[in-house]
Amino acid sequence: MRILLKNGAVVNVFTGEIEKTNILIEDKVIAGVGTEYCEADADKTEDLAGKFVCPGFIDGHIHIESTMLLPGELAKVCVPHGTTSIVSDPHEIANVCGTAGIEYMLETSEEIPMTVYLMLPSCVPATSFDESGAVLSAKDLKPFYNEVKVLGLAEMMNYPGVICGDGVVLEKINDAKEFNLIVNGHAPLLTGKSLDRYIAAGINDDHECSGFEEAAERIRKGQWVMIRQGTAARNLDALLPLFEEPYAHRCVLVTDDKHPSDLLESGHIDSIIRRAVKCGKSVVTGIRMATIQAAQCMGIRNLGAIAPGYIADILVLDDLDTVRVRDVYKNGEKVVENGIVCPFPEPEVRADLIKAVKNSFFMDELSAKNFYIEPKTPRCRVIKGIDDQLITDEWITEINWEKNGGIDIDRDILKIAVAERHMHTGHIGLGFISGIGLKEGAIASSVSHDSHNLVIVGTNDLDMATAANRIRELGGGCVVVRDGKVMAEMPLPVAGLMSEGSAETVAKENARVRKAVYKLGANKGLEPFMTMAFMSLSVIPSLKITTKGLVDVNSQKLVSLYVE
Amino acid sequence: MRILLKNGAVVNVFTGEIEKTNILIEDKVIAGVGTEYCEADADKTEDLAGKFVCPGFIDGHIHIESTMLLPGELAKVCVPHGTTSIVSDPHEIANVCGTAGIEYMLETSEEIPMTVYLMLPSCVPATSFDESGAVLSAKDLKPFYNEVKVLGLAEMMNYPGVICGDGVVLEKINDAKEFNLIVNGHAPLLTGKSLDRYIAAGINDDHECSGFEEAAERIRKGQWVMIRQGTAARNLDALLPLFEEPYAHRCVLVTDDKHPSDLLESGHIDSIIRRAVKCGKSVVTGIRMATIQAAQCMGIRNLGAIAPGYIADILVLDDLDTVRVRDVYKNGEKVVENGIVCPFPEPEVRADLIKAVKNSFFMDELSAKNFYIEPKTPRCRVIKGIDDQLITDEWITEINWEKNGGIDIDRDILKIAVAERHMHTGHIGLGFISGIGLKEGAIASSVSHDSHNLVIVGTNDLDMATAANRIRELGGGCVVVRDGKVMAEMPLPVAGLMSEGSAETVAKENARVRKAVYKLGANKGLEPFMTMAFMSLSVIPSLKITTKGLVDVNSQKLVSLYVE
Repeated sequence: MRILLKNGAVVNVFTGEIEKTNILIEDKVIAGVGTEYCEADADKTEDLAGKFVCPGFIDGHIHIESTMLLPGELAKVCVPHGTTSIVSDPHEIANVCGTAGIEYMLETSEEIPMTVYLMLPSCVPATSFDESGAVLSAKDLKPFYNEVKVLGLAEMMNYPGVICGDGVVLEKINDAKEFNLIVNGHAPLLTGKSLDRYIAAGINDDHECSGFEEAAERIRKGQWVMIRQGTAARNLDALLPLFEEPYAHRCVLVTDDKHPSDLLESGHIDSIIRRAVKCGKSVVTGIRMATIQAAQCMGIRNLGAIAPGYIADILVLDDLDTVRVRDVYKNGEKVVENGIVCPFPEPEVRADLIKAVKNSFFMDELSAKNFYIEPKTPRCRVIKGIDDQLITDEWITEINWEKNGGIDIDRDILKIAVAERHMHTGHIGLGFISGIGLKEGAIASSVSHDSHNLVIVGTNDLDMATAANRIRELGGGCVVVRDGKVMAEMPLPVAGLMSEGSAETVAKENARVRKAVYKLGANKGLEPFMTMAFMSLSVIPSLKITTKGLVDVNSQKLVSLYVE
Repeated sequence: MRILLKNGAVVNVFTGEIEKTNILIEDKVIAGVGTEYCEADADKTEDLAGKFVCPGFIDGHIHIESTMLLPGELAKVCVPHGTTSIVSDPHEIANVCGTAGIEYMLETSEEIPMTVYLMLPSCVPATSFDESGAVLSAKDLKPFYNEVKVLGLAEMMNYPGVICGDGVVLEKINDAKEFNLIVNGHAPLLTGKSLDRYIAAGINDDHECSGFEEAAERIRKGQWVMIRQGTAARNLDALLPLFEEPYAHRCVLVTDDKHPSDLLESGHIDSIIRRAVKCGKSVVTGIRMATIQAAQCMGIRNLGAIAPGYIADILVLDDLDTVRVRDVYKNGEKVVENGIVCPFPEPEVRADLIKAVKNSFFMDELSAKNFYIEPKTPRCRVIKGIDDQLITDEWITEINWEKNGGIDIDRDILKIAVAERHMHTGHIGLGFISGIGLKEGAIASSVSHDSHNLVIVGTNDLDMATAANRIRELGGGCVVVRDGKVMAEMPLPVAGLMSEGSAETVAKENARVRKAVYKLGANKGLEPFMTMAFMSLSVIPSLKITTKGLVDVNSQKLVSLYVE
């Protein structure tokens, strides 16, 4: 099948020029560009007079699991916004299901109108405190490098390991290099000599830059900078100076983590370009970052340009500056027409993989007594959440053990628990938390970074047990409970991380759950489920909690709840 | 070994900035860049105050054989000019010695202070008229892709084969792609739809652009443009507009073919940058083309920049605009000090490879009667050389058979012969040539593109036989003969293409041979040996001669000497 797209104003990402010309697509590939191509060359012609044409957008770094959508459902939201390829790190599902999770992501990504490239999760589990569903060694990862869609090793968060030359870490990096593939970085605020050591190990890029100087240092030192604008982490405004040379040509646009409601409301990569343009930056610079530069950064040849031999991923835009996408061609086929996604087949997935991801709860039912904390000392360590931030403080205070097992709603001291769910250990970490603000009931979630054990925050042990057990029944999700009854829930039956529903469904369920949690009195300055999901990530300071108990992140040691 | 280079003004090829800073080299690699590095970090410190520092230069496309020097001798000339890596296509030696020639080039390139990357010759033999020493199929080439220093498939000159989808050609291209390696282009003046088809097959670049529009079209269509400035082909002046954006970032500097005298007099890649600067272009743009961009174009990671993890190939320049190289670090070791190359070991080469390349003459001795042309028709086709060009015309004229077997010195009609030397076929193509201008004697050479059979031009059959036999004795070279005696000679015993001497020796011998040939009356507007070397290349119009006789290049057919 040969399709001629004629008379469009085509963005040339190599030169930055915009030229009215014709494009001939032959099967999945761009056969040629130029006014010498005419109707006679094609089986079908589309006249794009008055329209703009550019290559499909690439999200250089995303975790599909954070969208809570399966790849096909994610495609239905992203493709109409012009995203034809994403580079995903299946870090979350790998922490739950190991290599089966990676295989599942590969299989569910087939046949959808968006190419899903994968990076192999480098840090499963994330820390030695984590009781995850799997431990992925270099040996486990290596076979995946033969997959065409695997581009390398995902964000190497263990930068201390890289810097001190940890053998296990270096083995993973060297395997990727041996396959001539790349290693993504993740080293917020690292600078100077430490950054040099990290980069010298072969780290290609970073998406954690939150300031211009931080980013400029990385570019000078040869890294690509991925400008991140997701739902929680929004670095674009601070990094706007990167839209000018000599930095722009070494930048890429990524979302990292983006929620369905945000995708539905604002869009995807298009929204980042749109915002940059609103701030006075060149739309062509944004398009180059989102296309050819993303491909170059990730080492993908033949993607991200409208030129002979390139994959025919093409956007037709009504307007350039607002990045209003009208039609999308994926592999030479029209997959979005006038903003509407054309139907596409469900991917066929191996039964054993479906079984693996849909049966990710290996824990017994809990009862109120599992949440009992023995009163030992008058004073305890309390996790003190900080509005709108993922970091916490350690707060040492008197616990009123007499009343409600130490929970003190008036002083906003609630109970938090992290229950192991991967291998029936029965481990449960218990502690107190301040800053969530519930006045009654309990909330629980199977999304809790990075091991995704069950995290529960509550005002009483009974509601906490009810919430935990409901999630166990659902096979994953977020639940809000009051007086022993479920007020709202969002099922996430795929590895306890993803829904099988559409973005619209998930957004609605999510809204309901959020509404319910605010009804329980949760602080308005806070996304309670997201805050709770990061309480178990023991790489973000200061005091966190895992299945093994409280962790002092700065000293990287388990600490007692009790203060003598 | 850790070396600190401090206080130099360092060219950052990522940003184009020049900043006074310090560089720490650790073993072969750049460990870090920044003023925070100090003497205490290093075993040795060099103060480069007042000096400029930039990455070592890369020649993106060269044929070592055309320099007539072995890699080690070539390094001795090029490295002091700042060239620390070259990408060579061993097309010439492969035409003579097949895969043994490629292996020989790999082995002779070890241990020298210049990295020799290889591209695999794509067109051996160049045409079906060629009787070469080897035929290299895709199957022959494939094992070489596993060599670390092999970067892909060399200049795909057979563009008609690519465009019409010739299976043999596509197999070679697809093999390179399968290894995720690149394919160099070679398609002068190809444009529009034909160029699109050529590029779409996966052709990465072109070094044959002689005009700005030709080059700009290629950049727009996604190819890299290699700006060539060699001894014969000099495209820089015409391509100077490429030193500005939006083109500059997609360009690379190459020499292709460069002679020893020219290397000694003008330099190598440095001379291209110098000339561009003299014409008002930015020296940093030139340096970027010669360093990071060359590496990117060729798919080499970790080369071409002064940044953590990059190979420590570093130049210390006295002056930036004149590109005056003082010291050179190769793999972190100082290999040029104050312009003088430090001694380095001779590479060890396998005995069977030495035997293969040093015994490349498989032909019997010739006598005058081998050069006899039977008078059949009054009129014959004569090859008409054109001053200073590689193309020829067909000239049909009366031959005076009575006098000297058809040779007519007054009308500048000399005899030309191409004698097969690879497999004892005894084939000899005979014809007449005009434009060389010899008044007496004969000249002969074993450098004759692309099969490198023996080419002889002379004023009488006896001198022609003497010249041919002398080259056979030498095992290759260029010879000038008068009255049965050798006047001057340049031995090229390695495959009949390369000397074992230094650049100085070869330049001297070459000067002597040239002087002798002008003494015989050769046209001053002409490089007689170079002109002669291209008389057998049946891809450049119009009338050429091979071991099988005259070839009409435009129709790609053998034609008779005789015109009925």
